[in-house]
Amino acid sequence: MANYKVYGDIKSGNCYKIKLLMSLLNIEHEWLHIDILAGESQTAEFKTRNSLGKIPVLETRDGEFLSESNAILNFIAEGTDYLPSNGLARAKILQWQFFEQYSHEPYIAVARYINTYLGLPDDRKDEFHSKQKGGHAALSAMEEQLKKTPFLTGDRFSIADISLYAYTHVAHEGGFDLLHYPFIIAWCKRITELPGFYAMP
Amino acid sequence: MANYKVYGDIKSGNCYKIKLLMSLLNIEHEWLHIDILAGESQTAEFKTRNSLGKIPVLETRDGEFLSESNAILNFIAEGTDYLPSNGLARAKILQWQFFEQYSHEPYIAVARYINTYLGLPDDRKDEFHSKQKGGHAALSAMEEQLKKTPFLTGDRFSIADISLYAYTHVAHEGGFDLLHYPFIIAWCKRITELPGFYAMP
Repeated sequence: MANYKVYGDIKSGNCYKIKLLMSLLNIEHEWLHIDILAGESQTAEFKTRNSLGKIPVLETRDGEFLSESNAILNFIAEGTDYLPSNGLARAKILQWQFFEQYSHEPYIAVARYINTYLGLPDDRKDEFHSKQKGGHAALSAMEEQLKKTPFLTGDRFSIADISLYAYTHVAHEGGFDLLHYPFIIAWCKRITELPGFYAMP
Repeated sequence: MANYKVYGDIKSGNCYKIKLLMSLLNIEHEWLHIDILAGESQTAEFKTRNSLGKIPVLETRDGEFLSESNAILNFIAEGTDYLPSNGLARAKILQWQFFEQYSHEPYIAVARYINTYLGLPDDRKDEFHSKQKGGHAALSAMEEQLKKTPFLTGDRFSIADISLYAYTHVAHEGGFDLLHYPFIIAWCKRITELPGFYAMP
């Protein structure tokens, strides 16, 4: 029996974050695919795992559940090189992760979802276009940091990089051309070269 | 010289979180008021503290800056009773804090901002009304948890409660009637009774 079960869709950036961390840390786990378009995250059974019906969800060996992708990353990475034990270095990781959920994901991931999952239907084209400005603001903030340091919180790779890599490396699927962001492109390449890297299928 | 400077607006829930924690823990700090409607968070000087021009921002004695309200809470509360040192209990706090930033604040705080700060102008009425459904979903998720435990992560008050209290206790200013949520009302009352509680002015 694996230490963890993960309920998710590997092509969802929020779920992919967990797969990438598990792969980099070589942690045994069982992956259970959830098809959100088929309603599999909205069943009564699934909502016993997360009442909001959202993925990813982590299940521990003790049958406890944890949701919110970045909370799961912090839980799994505790005690590893990817998460300093305390102090400002640890808080800076959270700063980037909250930035990701508030200022990056709602633009870049939602634009990608409308375009790639839903096929850019006419009634969501205005919403798709409205996401471009905020998405570029988020990418610009990352580019500014990556001009100064190889990873988002400094010289060392951390779970902050996992959180931002997930949707950034597929931002073109949401209409964001990364060619305007050479430091982001170089950072993405550094991440793909880490031992144990796992590519989104 | 105080240990910390905090740049913020006490009536912004995200800033108030920091004030409440500082008061509960009796931590000396200097509060510097930033008027966002007067553009004070968008000056070149302010953007040296947070390039996104958002409040709150914490400045340490060493002149280091930290942004994102929930990252600041985790940094300040480290080593106190309000933040367990590790394990699932700590991760559950983050789960609620990421829920707050993604599924609560964008509805309840934004509706309140449009209504209270901007005076519900005609061109934002549709947006105001569009926030109601998501806001009630967030309040319902809190209500379900608070039926089971006195605080969001169990028997003990934590920084997760601070994060959610900030905008929940003023949700009526965004059009959300808390009378539908008796367990949230009782939880709010428990928080106001904590030693060192600081009320939003």
